[in-house]
Amino acid sequence: MEPADGSSPGPALEEGIASVFSSAPALMETDGFSNRLKEFLDLHSVAAGGGRKVVCITSGGTTVPLEQRCVRYIDNFSSGHRGAAAAEYFIEAGYAVVFLYRIGSVLPYTRSLPDEPLLECLELDDDSNIRVRKSCAEAVKKYHAAVAGNLLIKLPFTTIFEYLQMLQIVAQAMKPLGRYAMLFLAAAVSDFYIPWQSMAEHKIQSASGPLDMRLVQVPKMLSILRTEWSPLAFCISFKLETDSKILLEKADMALRKYKMHMVVANELQTRKEEVIVVTLDEKIPVHRDKSQPDSDVEQPLVELIVDKHSTYINNHR
Amino acid sequence: MEPADGSSPGPALEEGIASVFSSAPALMETDGFSNRLKEFLDLHSVAAGGGRKVVCITSGGTTVPLEQRCVRYIDNFSSGHRGAAAAEYFIEAGYAVVFLYRIGSVLPYTRSLPDEPLLECLELDDDSNIRVRKSCAEAVKKYHAAVAGNLLIKLPFTTIFEYLQMLQIVAQAMKPLGRYAMLFLAAAVSDFYIPWQSMAEHKIQSASGPLDMRLVQVPKMLSILRTEWSPLAFCISFKLETDSKILLEKADMALRKYKMHMVVANELQTRKEEVIVVTLDEKIPVHRDKSQPDSDVEQPLVELIVDKHSTYINNHR
Repeated sequence: MEPADGSSPGPALEEGIASVFSSAPALMETDGFSNRLKEFLDLHSVAAGGGRKVVCITSGGTTVPLEQRCVRYIDNFSSGHRGAAAAEYFIEAGYAVVFLYRIGSVLPYTRSLPDEPLLECLELDDDSNIRVRKSCAEAVKKYHAAVAGNLLIKLPFTTIFEYLQMLQIVAQAMKPLGRYAMLFLAAAVSDFYIPWQSMAEHKIQSASGPLDMRLVQVPKMLSILRTEWSPLAFCISFKLETDSKILLEKADMALRKYKMHMVVANELQTRKEEVIVVTLDEKIPVHRDKSQPDSDVEQPLVELIVDKHSTYINNHR
Repeated sequence: MEPADGSSPGPALEEGIASVFSSAPALMETDGFSNRLKEFLDLHSVAAGGGRKVVCITSGGTTVPLEQRCVRYIDNFSSGHRGAAAAEYFIEAGYAVVFLYRIGSVLPYTRSLPDEPLLECLELDDDSNIRVRKSCAEAVKKYHAAVAGNLLIKLPFTTIFEYLQMLQIVAQAMKPLGRYAMLFLAAAVSDFYIPWQSMAEHKIQSASGPLDMRLVQVPKMLSILRTEWSPLAFCISFKLETDSKILLEKADMALRKYKMHMVVANELQTRKEEVIVVTLDEKIPVHRDKSQPDSDVEQPLVELIVDKHSTYINNHR
């Protein structure tokens, strides 16, 4: 059942969402996540009058456990490179960043580093003293500046259950920021899941022939996010497809169905070179600057978004 | 069909294995993997007369792609901590280590480091110079010593298809080492997979109701590994269960069925505290030294294995 314009998302959807949340194990707040978030936002909420905008970036893929004591799970591929890069550019543009990321995905300021940064960024001189290679120093400085300036808070998730609950908490906590809030939903969220109750308690045994699994659809949270959790926030979602033929059509559908301000359409093969920003009025291709070997598509993308976000704020003053 | 003692693994199994390999995409040797491996083993093969033993450690979980252009996959949970720790202790015990690991899992000499080693191991002094925190220096030194001594080669995999093909290449390449070779099979290998041909080419669409999947069993490679790929190597496999009631029984079955020299039985909840080494004659519990806060179960485990491997070599001189 589709929500009518501006109305609540409808009883069928609300039931679906309630059923995911009620079936999920309660969120473990081992690191005082809600309190750390509140302190961070309070800091910028005061500053918001002076113009500090806050973006929540979701990044990396969610997992769907197949067993309650999780040995096996279905994962959605996403390195988290896009979210990490965007975080750096948003901080450069003056935003504070709530970074809601999959554990193990790329973190801001680490993407330019080698795979084994500690081992490869450090070297021994002739006297066996350890030194830092120059190529790694810049990222470390920028990271420490962002942390020292209270411009970055990192909140990790693993499963779809954790992700959905944390997104709700973050979106609701950002509601008081009004139009100064932005949600940049780059995480690769699972479309299908196995409800907690119907999961095997123990590791599925392999001795008994083929394994048949039925997964059900994860209800889309975007409608309720827009209408209830954070109705004034500037909302950007992402659409990834491997089949370019259906990509723009699906991006456009998502834009209208979930009332996003923008949908960023990207194709798996070319996503590091080009994306297409879909709004109600336009389809804007964004390319990386090919004349620069180290350029990325996130820099012009974030520039465009920052510009559209300013317009969105100014049009409603 | 079970192989009779010492015979070939039987035509049914061979067919199953042939079907996995023929359905899989060919291994990409982008980094000259076979050549690097050959050079590494040649080095120690000469040394083998003088007593250099070589262990292949498999580590981390394999993935099973659900789509050919892989967005979603089933993953087997494994941090790779055990394999990485064992690699360090084997090198300390004088072995050369072939480390066949899942990309992104823990690497030797990195487990004692913080999650973001580069950012957290480096600090700025008052003049904004970067320094290395003392707590991180030891690991870096040991890593460089292992690399400089040609005692560690790292070979990364992601999917079950890559893992199985690489394991075959490594085991066959180690065959000339005879009893000086050891296979320490700690990777969490998927039990079920979707044959490449029956996979969706594009991303599975979520609009059309629940998702039904049929996965088939991955044929066990251990029999053919023992009888053909590397018949004299000392073989250790691992059995992980979440249900302690069936653990030892399943470990014992695996020992006999695949003619392992040892099966290390571990339960998900307690695997960092205790494992039980199952051989034909004994069941030996191995604990970490609880009087030492930084101790692990891998140190006494590797000590026991090194001892049993020596006995295995000496009994057949």
